[in-house]
Amino acid sequence: MITVGVIGYGYWGPNLVRNFADTAGARVGFVTDMRPARLSQVTSRYPATKVSTDYRELINDPSVDAVAIATAVSSHFDLAMATLRAGKHVLVEKPMTSTSEQAAVLIEEADRRGLVLMVDHTFVYTDAVAKIRELTQGGDLGEIYYYDSVRINLGLFQHDVNVLWDLAVHDLSIMDYVLSQSPSAVSATGLAHVAGQPENIAYMTMFFDGRLIAHVHVNWLAPVKVRRTLLGGSRRMIVFDDLEASEKVKVYDRGISVNPSPENVYQMLVGYRAGDMWAPQLGISEALHTEAQHFVECIEQKRTPRTDGRAGLRVVRLLEAATQSMAQQGRLVSLAASTPVL
Amino acid sequence: MITVGVIGYGYWGPNLVRNFADTAGARVGFVTDMRPARLSQVTSRYPATKVSTDYRELINDPSVDAVAIATAVSSHFDLAMATLRAGKHVLVEKPMTSTSEQAAVLIEEADRRGLVLMVDHTFVYTDAVAKIRELTQGGDLGEIYYYDSVRINLGLFQHDVNVLWDLAVHDLSIMDYVLSQSPSAVSATGLAHVAGQPENIAYMTMFFDGRLIAHVHVNWLAPVKVRRTLLGGSRRMIVFDDLEASEKVKVYDRGISVNPSPENVYQMLVGYRAGDMWAPQLGISEALHTEAQHFVECIEQKRTPRTDGRAGLRVVRLLEAATQSMAQQGRLVSLAASTPVL
Amino acid sequence: MITVGVIGYGYWGPNLVRNFADTAGARVGFVTDMRPARLSQVTSRYPATKVSTDYRELINDPSVDAVAIATAVSSHFDLAMATLRAGKHVLVEKPMTSTSEQAAVLIEEADRRGLVLMVDHTFVYTDAVAKIRELTQGGDLGEIYYYDSVRINLGLFQHDVNVLWDLAVHDLSIMDYVLSQSPSAVSATGLAHVAGQPENIAYMTMFFDGRLIAHVHVNWLAPVKVRRTLLGGSRRMIVFDDLEASEKVKVYDRGISVNPSPENVYQMLVGYRAGDMWAPQLGISEALHTEAQHFVECIEQKRTPRTDGRAGLRVVRLLEAATQSMAQQGRLVSLAASTPVL
Amino acid sequence: MITVGVIGYGYWGPNLVRNFADTAGARVGFVTDMRPARLSQVTSRYPATKVSTDYRELINDPSVDAVAIATAVSSHFDLAMATLRAGKHVLVEKPMTSTSEQAAVLIEEADRRGLVLMVDHTFVYTDAVAKIRELTQGGDLGEIYYYDSVRINLGLFQHDVNVLWDLAVHDLSIMDYVLSQSPSAVSATGLAHVAGQPENIAYMTMFFDGRLIAHVHVNWLAPVKVRRTLLGGSRRMIVFDDLEASEKVKVYDRGISVNPSPENVYQMLVGYRAGDMWAPQLGISEALHTEAQHFVECIEQKRTPRTDGRAGLRVVRLLEAATQSMAQQGRLVSLAASTPVL
Repeated sequence: MITVGVIGYGYWGPNLVRNFADTAGARVGFVTDMRPARLSQVTSRYPATKVSTDYRELINDPSVDAVAIATAVSSHFDLAMATLRAGKHVLVEKPMTSTSEQAAVLIEEADRRGLVLMVDHTFVYTDAVAKIRELTQGGDLGEIYYYDSVRINLGLFQHDVNVLWDLAVHDLSIMDYVLSQSPSAVSATGLAHVAGQPENIAYMTMFFDGRLIAHVHVNWLAPVKVRRTLLGGSRRMIVFDDLEASEKVKVYDRGISVNPSPENVYQMLVGYRAGDMWAPQLGISEALHTEAQHFVECIEQKRTPRTDGRAGLRVVRLLEAATQSMAQQGRLVSLAASTPVL
Repeated sequence: MITVGVIGYGYWGPNLVRNFADTAGARVGFVTDMRPARLSQVTSRYPATKVSTDYRELINDPSVDAVAIATAVSSHFDLAMATLRAGKHVLVEKPMTSTSEQAAVLIEEADRRGLVLMVDHTFVYTDAVAKIRELTQGGDLGEIYYYDSVRINLGLFQHDVNVLWDLAVHDLSIMDYVLSQSPSAVSATGLAHVAGQPENIAYMTMFFDGRLIAHVHVNWLAPVKVRRTLLGGSRRMIVFDDLEASEKVKVYDRGISVNPSPENVYQMLVGYRAGDMWAPQLGISEALHTEAQHFVECIEQKRTPRTDGRAGLRVVRLLEAATQSMAQQGRLVSLAASTPVL
Repeated sequence: MITVGVIGYGYWGPNLVRNFADTAGARVGFVTDMRPARLSQVTSRYPATKVSTDYRELINDPSVDAVAIATAVSSHFDLAMATLRAGKHVLVEKPMTSTSEQAAVLIEEADRRGLVLMVDHTFVYTDAVAKIRELTQGGDLGEIYYYDSVRINLGLFQHDVNVLWDLAVHDLSIMDYVLSQSPSAVSATGLAHVAGQPENIAYMTMFFDGRLIAHVHVNWLAPVKVRRTLLGGSRRMIVFDDLEASEKVKVYDRGISVNPSPENVYQMLVGYRAGDMWAPQLGISEALHTEAQHFVECIEQKRTPRTDGRAGLRVVRLLEAATQSMAQQGRLVSLAASTPVL
Repeated sequence: MITVGVIGYGYWGPNLVRNFADTAGARVGFVTDMRPARLSQVTSRYPATKVSTDYRELINDPSVDAVAIATAVSSHFDLAMATLRAGKHVLVEKPMTSTSEQAAVLIEEADRRGLVLMVDHTFVYTDAVAKIRELTQGGDLGEIYYYDSVRINLGLFQHDVNVLWDLAVHDLSIMDYVLSQSPSAVSATGLAHVAGQPENIAYMTMFFDGRLIAHVHVNWLAPVKVRRTLLGGSRRMIVFDDLEASEKVKVYDRGISVNPSPENVYQMLVGYRAGDMWAPQLGISEALHTEAQHFVECIEQKRTPRTDGRAGLRVVRLLEAATQSMAQQGRLVSLAASTPVL
């Protein structure tokens, strides 16, 4: 039985607590939050769980084996570091840290101590993304041509991070899991409509070696909510619409065929293929439940999580590069150059 | 009665012919196309209309008062120039020309001769865009924060121009009509998935003086067709979905309100407003019919068209700058620098 | 403080418990269910709440003031009767009872004892239906011409009631609240696709005095889920789509205008009006929360609930008549004849 | 070469003329309409086609081999009869005639003379309905449980026929082609909202021998346009949405499985299956083009059309029975009794 402590009981914390409480082999032993009112909610729902406004009590509690951190990004590094130093496993909310240097330090610390360091890239644990990965890696799509995502809504403006760190992070974590390549360079643009605040609208293009391109389009100030990702391949294409009640993933047997023109070597003939559409039936498991279970299994079986610290680092590095590019109105930022050595 | 000649009877030419034939005060006197098979279609439908495979016969025909050019972009300049030199008015398909220099030369020639030079920015003549302009210019939206458009489909790959010149041109012409400002700089990215062909996927960000940003997202290789434009203002926001059968334009009474926090001068309080949605009833006139009528009126009344050569030039200049930026993976291209003096 | 007991902790019971637990002025004192496993869930979430597998303990518990009944329809009458006889207020799940006679007996009993008898017509407490009633009663729609609802899905086949009692009951309760008239006759058709089971597909037309007609279309065996209600008036029309995330209620300024033809008195000229569409912003309160609060207020202030026993009876009477008509393949059943005297 | 004459150049006539003009082996030789203004449109588009305001000239013209009738329903019988008596083949607009007796007389006349008598059940010639028939007849759906269609819009009120004859006729013709059974009885309800006019809203249930039920739901006074047909089978189910730009036909691998309960012979266990959805790619041919070609082939090869007079009669018989039932508020009308002997 793994005893989990949860730091932060705001928006996401209650979901973590509920899911760890429902996970076989785990129990929630301790919850902390700086706001006593939040803790009284914990107590009323989970009377057996210890609470405190001081996270250090949780970290130092010998009964706690693993800690889930669901606080503001800026505090992730300190809390995760303290947890690892106390010899406990860590599950940290996305994005993993504020800087790639911090992420690298945490990875090193966890490696040295043999502890599990996992990042809560929730989408990776959905049935939809699992199906997309299966189709992509299994070759059904052919060569991958593009990943293109629109993720907009009238959102919760955040004060400490720009909209890329809040919304694009989902796409970067999906791409990290689904694609077999990492971007080599990034160009991003965006704007802050509220003076003194971070950018609330942003566009991010990622270049890869080869014929793959990715683009993520995020906005906290949109009148409608859109969550639509296109994944184009040479053989088939996927539309992933997370707002669809059913049929979230649609696979289109569409594309082009290219033949050199027999008459003119300089002219390509581009033909179009339009075939059936197919929406695979997806499971209905809650992603966070699958993820909580995976975290517990990784601890018990000393395995590397599907979304380990290195995955978290790769995503943070992209966010860093994009933020840098955005500050310079789209200037290309190479990712090779920004890679910390691990 | 204005006698119109139409050069090019491919995809768009038949629409021009049909609409000029239906326009009071106009008749279609001459149609040319290099393919005799196309011309026999003209003859079967419009037996009174002259045809030829040689556009020079049309341009030199003294009965022709005005010429509509619906050929490949690369031929626009030569055909329009020959037409103007023959003393005839010109309506040229979008994009106006292959370069901004060409556009500037045509404008000068038309000005010197007192001829009407109009560009077929069709969307400007739709009831939807007219309503959007009315709401935008009338102040209903407040300060305009962003223009954001997705225009994708499994399209007709073109050999001579990239996808920006084919699809983004629609958005640039809408923006030119609807917004009161012109972009000051552009950053674009994209990729060609077919070797030796122009880019078939592209993303284009436009910066303005002030808090306005625009983004256009185009793709010839998408499994689904999307035509959705968001126009965000400080007071209201518009969603323009051109694929909706009715309710193409929806106006959302949504946004944010920003107040300096009383406790902390460094912290802004961002509040959200969510009010009613409203879809104004739009007319059902065909845009090209309205446009054909406008062209005829401009000739008769010696007026400057709503989409004159200068509008065409502004759009070409943006496409040029975006193509240049795209070749350098998003490098910012200032529009001030690229402006030809008129 | 009203202490509420809840009988039945299956599908709906947990929602009742959660909402009464969150209602100011109320507490959940007792929950019963025949399945001990369900009760252990209650205990783990609400340790202070008494539980039992015997509903009589709940009904006889002097600390319980009011009882919510969330069991199979066939048990509603006995449980509600026992509750009333114990001098306690009742909230009973819809449909109220299996027969209109049972409903009439309960109304009489509650009246005689001065107890609140309320039926859980949940939709009546939604913000959407409140807005529809406001528009309908306020005259915005003009004369009401029709109520037309499609409510289908791959549903939970029930063994004791047909699909009308499970799904059409929602529409009948909405109509009872929104319209100012009651149907005078009903014709229904349907079929059972599983031998020996109740009808799983049904169509029900209701006639009124005057020019109003209503139709409800329900199906447990549909591949897709639809929840769409049209309310047509002489001036405006409403589309209520309960599956829309936002914009559940859309008001269309559409209709016809009828003028006697000047030339021919026998020929009417029917003209069409097509104006704007408008989607009012709706609140986001949970219907059951509003309803729980209303139940508590009716008890405290000795008021008649919005969905009292008489509303429940009217709905049961319609279901009874429709079931009778369906057994005779659409034979018209008059509602006047079937009315028990109260 | 078959020379076709078209009587009636109103809403549908121009489509017939255009398609016969494009059909190999056919030419449009004559068009009549009572309104001279309509005929001048014919002349301007088809200068070689004869025109007249008197249909008798067309019927008596020896160069005309076959006649397409696109006039008001009430005139179908007289015009078709005159055409057959003149020894010419007939294609008549749907619904075939105003009464089933008239339809039977036409069938007899055509049979006696060996002429082709075809009814313009256009939907039968769409790629979507062809695919639905293929899936239904091929056994992919299993046993057919229901046909359920919603066909509503703010329509063109008609003066001579009720909404069933205008809209439900489409569904009846699709059912006639797709299903292997004919209804044995019908119950219909409806209402006229304009005094003295035919019913503008109607609901029609059809019973079959066995476990099949059909329902058609039509309305000329709806604020939105809906064209959605569900076809439920024991193995799979179809949703046919004619307003979808692509994916008009979706096949759902969903349904129920029924097992007798091992414990209780009176209780069935109903299980649910939810599998993939699949949207077959459909052709893009115009239905009326396919139909015009079929008519010409039937004449040339002396074949019985897919939608012959007997299909037309079956549909008219259903409309007659439904109209009779509707006048009596849903009274069951048996179709066996109303069958004229052929």
